[in-house]
Amino acid sequence: MSKVRVGIIGAGRIGKIHADNLLRMSEAEVIAISDPFAGEELRAWANERGIAHVATDSGAIIGNPDIDAVFICSPTDTHVPLIMEAAAAGKHIFCEKPVSMDIERTREALDSVRAAGVKLQIGFNRRFDHNFKRVQELVQQGRIGEPHIIKITSRDPNPPHADYIKVSGGLFMDMAIHDFDMARFLSGSEVTEVSAHGTVLVDPVFAKYGDVDTAITTLRFENGALGVIDNSRKAAYGYDQRVEVFGSKGCVTADNDYPNTTIVSDDEGIVRDKPLHFFLERYNEAYINEVRMFVESIQSGAALPVEGFDGLQAERIALAAKLSVELGRPIKLSEV
Amino acid sequence: MSKVRVGIIGAGRIGKIHADNLLRMSEAEVIAISDPFAGEELRAWANERGIAHVATDSGAIIGNPDIDAVFICSPTDTHVPLIMEAAAAGKHIFCEKPVSMDIERTREALDSVRAAGVKLQIGFNRRFDHNFKRVQELVQQGRIGEPHIIKITSRDPNPPHADYIKVSGGLFMDMAIHDFDMARFLSGSEVTEVSAHGTVLVDPVFAKYGDVDTAITTLRFENGALGVIDNSRKAAYGYDQRVEVFGSKGCVTADNDYPNTTIVSDDEGIVRDKPLHFFLERYNEAYINEVRMFVESIQSGAALPVEGFDGLQAERIALAAKLSVELGRPIKLSEV
Amino acid sequence: MSKVRVGIIGAGRIGKIHADNLLRMSEAEVIAISDPFAGEELRAWANERGIAHVATDSGAIIGNPDIDAVFICSPTDTHVPLIMEAAAAGKHIFCEKPVSMDIERTREALDSVRAAGVKLQIGFNRRFDHNFKRVQELVQQGRIGEPHIIKITSRDPNPPHADYIKVSGGLFMDMAIHDFDMARFLSGSEVTEVSAHGTVLVDPVFAKYGDVDTAITTLRFENGALGVIDNSRKAAYGYDQRVEVFGSKGCVTADNDYPNTTIVSDDEGIVRDKPLHFFLERYNEAYINEVRMFVESIQSGAALPVEGFDGLQAERIALAAKLSVELGRPIKLSEV
Amino acid sequence: MSKVRVGIIGAGRIGKIHADNLLRMSEAEVIAISDPFAGEELRAWANERGIAHVATDSGAIIGNPDIDAVFICSPTDTHVPLIMEAAAAGKHIFCEKPVSMDIERTREALDSVRAAGVKLQIGFNRRFDHNFKRVQELVQQGRIGEPHIIKITSRDPNPPHADYIKVSGGLFMDMAIHDFDMARFLSGSEVTEVSAHGTVLVDPVFAKYGDVDTAITTLRFENGALGVIDNSRKAAYGYDQRVEVFGSKGCVTADNDYPNTTIVSDDEGIVRDKPLHFFLERYNEAYINEVRMFVESIQSGAALPVEGFDGLQAERIALAAKLSVELGRPIKLSEV
Repeated sequence: MSKVRVGIIGAGRIGKIHADNLLRMSEAEVIAISDPFAGEELRAWANERGIAHVATDSGAIIGNPDIDAVFICSPTDTHVPLIMEAAAAGKHIFCEKPVSMDIERTREALDSVRAAGVKLQIGFNRRFDHNFKRVQELVQQGRIGEPHIIKITSRDPNPPHADYIKVSGGLFMDMAIHDFDMARFLSGSEVTEVSAHGTVLVDPVFAKYGDVDTAITTLRFENGALGVIDNSRKAAYGYDQRVEVFGSKGCVTADNDYPNTTIVSDDEGIVRDKPLHFFLERYNEAYINEVRMFVESIQSGAALPVEGFDGLQAERIALAAKLSVELGRPIKLSEV
Repeated sequence: MSKVRVGIIGAGRIGKIHADNLLRMSEAEVIAISDPFAGEELRAWANERGIAHVATDSGAIIGNPDIDAVFICSPTDTHVPLIMEAAAAGKHIFCEKPVSMDIERTREALDSVRAAGVKLQIGFNRRFDHNFKRVQELVQQGRIGEPHIIKITSRDPNPPHADYIKVSGGLFMDMAIHDFDMARFLSGSEVTEVSAHGTVLVDPVFAKYGDVDTAITTLRFENGALGVIDNSRKAAYGYDQRVEVFGSKGCVTADNDYPNTTIVSDDEGIVRDKPLHFFLERYNEAYINEVRMFVESIQSGAALPVEGFDGLQAERIALAAKLSVELGRPIKLSEV
Repeated sequence: MSKVRVGIIGAGRIGKIHADNLLRMSEAEVIAISDPFAGEELRAWANERGIAHVATDSGAIIGNPDIDAVFICSPTDTHVPLIMEAAAAGKHIFCEKPVSMDIERTREALDSVRAAGVKLQIGFNRRFDHNFKRVQELVQQGRIGEPHIIKITSRDPNPPHADYIKVSGGLFMDMAIHDFDMARFLSGSEVTEVSAHGTVLVDPVFAKYGDVDTAITTLRFENGALGVIDNSRKAAYGYDQRVEVFGSKGCVTADNDYPNTTIVSDDEGIVRDKPLHFFLERYNEAYINEVRMFVESIQSGAALPVEGFDGLQAERIALAAKLSVELGRPIKLSEV
Repeated sequence: MSKVRVGIIGAGRIGKIHADNLLRMSEAEVIAISDPFAGEELRAWANERGIAHVATDSGAIIGNPDIDAVFICSPTDTHVPLIMEAAAAGKHIFCEKPVSMDIERTREALDSVRAAGVKLQIGFNRRFDHNFKRVQELVQQGRIGEPHIIKITSRDPNPPHADYIKVSGGLFMDMAIHDFDMARFLSGSEVTEVSAHGTVLVDPVFAKYGDVDTAITTLRFENGALGVIDNSRKAAYGYDQRVEVFGSKGCVTADNDYPNTTIVSDDEGIVRDKPLHFFLERYNEAYINEVRMFVESIQSGAALPVEGFDGLQAERIALAAKLSVELGRPIKLSEV
């Protein structure tokens, strides 16, 4: 097949990262980028990279007959309408998570994708991380037997700005949603029940917006396993992203990534540098891989590695977790 | 002060371990041991160690005016009556966990101890482990700031025999009770609410006796922190005993202990030996230290490191966890 | 400054790697590549990358007035004449190690570079590795005080082919030369004496060509420190590249890099995957960084990070090591 | 067999450690201890332990017909005469290292032991360390194939006092002698050639007494392997005792022992406590085991784990290392 011609909708940080990663692939071409605030700066940026078209309107992307696939990197509330428009226009779609914060709306978006027969990949980049991929592989190969307990630690180095907190959808929908997808990925099973406990220990601003900054979520899976996720909006030592799958024949863990293997021993103790600081450093390679697999799936017709359904399920778990904190009881996934 | 003269009630494995550890201390003397099944073998064992008296009846210990302190190492259902008798006789008491499986009975035992003005230490040996002690020390020194999340992994290498399962009191009262005490120890705070999820994945025999073999328990603490404990009755790689305390300024973890630091690299990978097999190996030093501190507290009049109240609280958490699994909802500690 | 226009001499594996890394930099342009065996394949490869000129003769590179800098990636025996020609033509030069296997010839090449006033960087890529760079930084900052002992472990996963062994210059000049440069880099001091011990334990073919496959080399440095390097042509577990600098205030070590942080615990033990397999995987990032710094030095006029003198010194140490094995005694660097 | 009755000659720190370890074994009895400075304090110490006889003269030990075995824990210059006297008196002998600093004298002592048909164990306690024992076991089982390179790091936390340095016999005979024995133990082969490099970097007092404080020693073994040992009299981070055996099928390493597994992550980095401080902490268990095996060998008639010959060989290597530094050339073991 010839090169996949891509248009990027949304020229924020993540839109630009995807563009740069696509530009490094010989199988893809980035031919257009749109952003409501597109101006001189974006034009220069695009020019330097040989991206031909810059627009303020996403319609210029979706309406462009030369484009095979669109990357939706705009704010969450635009995802559903853009997916529906792009699907109607016959474009394959890569959309950042979450599809929406409203399960019904997400379902509609998925329906339109199904009706149009296009592909929709959700930006759960962590599935493409070298550590987590290897854990999943080992679990799937039966290396640790039947999974019994899935544990995920996911802590950010710093909370987002108050403006963002207000519209983020909350810790579960904004941050833990990645962990909910990871739990499904690692267990190879669907979640049936969610019990979450949240609290505000990092910054009172979270309480102001009805959000939490520290949480523990327990999951039950269809295959009988239990899962537990602990989240914090602030880890003093940087980004903390670890997983563990314990099973009938053993246990597999993945530790954080570090910038180097250097260890200093002195009269104070034994010291190594902090883990890689945040998601751009830690998941750099994962961003490259997810885009590569999206393009390859379009070219080869193979199944996508993460589909719209995966987005929906993670949103349902996030919603259930939020409800569980509010109602102070376990929530069945079938309730949401 | 002169040597503390000790009598041991119950000559099972743990009674003998305590005896041997006491015998190595110049501050203590073991002068009697009792066991309903005391016979030639026990007499020979005692003789070899210079333990003067061997009896079949615990009354011979409690009634012996030369004895300062008793170690209650007999079956759980005898703990309360023996504590009450020993307290009435003015003996200091070291009692294995749990005091009982009935909170009211435990309270009565504690009342009798208080009334008699004697000391009662509960056998929460893990507080004396070099790793956990160091974690607690670091938390208490404020090294990681305010505790936000306390995580405990506690997995046995193999389930107990079916006979034992039947009378064990269940995973929470028998096994996780150590972790509940550890949670209080590490957080420096009381538990206010317990949510537990349990399941049977290791062996159906647990279901037969209304027990679980795999569990995740979430705790809320008075100081606002959250805690989570994961338990399994069977870890293929041996005894798995790790903790982590995450706080506002950092995180402290303690890994398992290993029999050596040897690592083999070959064409299959990088391999080290499994962790220390089970509690006798792992907590060997902790058993020595708990007994030493009990004896020293008696001699110096200093406060005990683990008191009857600690036994009661751990039992209440265990009971709440069991209830939570049964009722499928969080249980406030004030409910039990 | 405008882009640095580069010509590549030698289209083997390493020439192509440098080309690809240069192509990713916006500060550089690759405009020509030459190789005696240039044919259809190389032309297609160049075409795909937009490299305009493909030649069989290095003269087409050195004689091209549009070229600012040449990369000499051809066989070792061509390095000296090519450096002299390129210097005479006023080109900046990046040359793979070693410059030559004859110290006098290397000196001549360096003289011609000095006379021409061009820059010459030697391909000691390991100085740009994230681990070793960090070790050097810590040593230089005085983090471990005065360096006392420098230790380097450097083992290949597999010996090269017999054809290569024959012409390689031997373990010291071909393989350990990287470690000799690393020793100077980490110690921040010149080597004054070399004692080497070599033997053939991996494959008798090494003996056939008067070479060794296993060696231990002890170094004395001008600043009083001692160094020791152990080399093997075959490590069953893959590429083994570790360093340690021990000083008056502490010690800093750098371990191998691993493909992931995943650890499996089962009833056999605790296992992780082998280290990154060989130099292309391990030093991937180092290759990118060395080329970047070469280009930046040309643009900014800043000093090169590795100069011709560094190539000369490493060759002298290699020669001294070889002599030490032959004569069975320490060799002063001033002897070679 | 009945209990082995032991007499201790020399009531310094190490003599008392051996006594206490023997007292914990049911197979041994300590019935006498001698020291030229024996006084009230030693008498009280002995009394507390039930050691019947305290003498100022070693003759009271060697001449005591009730004693089966003597522990020679007196200064090095007394070892040879005491071994010869004890052997003549038919006592089994445990002697601290080195037997002497004069190879001929050591040979004489060994001859007298052989003539008398008694057992002589040398105090190379590190062979009984859990880590090194495990490494040796793995090497012997062929787990890493044929050994190619043996590496030993051995650094003390602090130099001894100047008074001790003066009479110590020097770094090689006093400190590295343990490593020379370890090299023979791990390689399973005899040393044939020694090349040593030493220098004074820690404290000029070493130079004053013709000694070094920092050294690298290269060994050749009969089986073709190479070995390298690095020593320092001062490691800022404490006792550093690591080994590595690299072979045809892989590599086995043993790291230091740590007081706990606790790791703190904060905004400064990832920190663990320093290794166990010095030999009493690190080799505590090794001291217990070596004494146990000595007693068991006497009881069972089994071969000793470390014999007089092992003492002789380590001394020869130490002497060769010293000579190598003085003469600036490799020394064949057959030369000493």
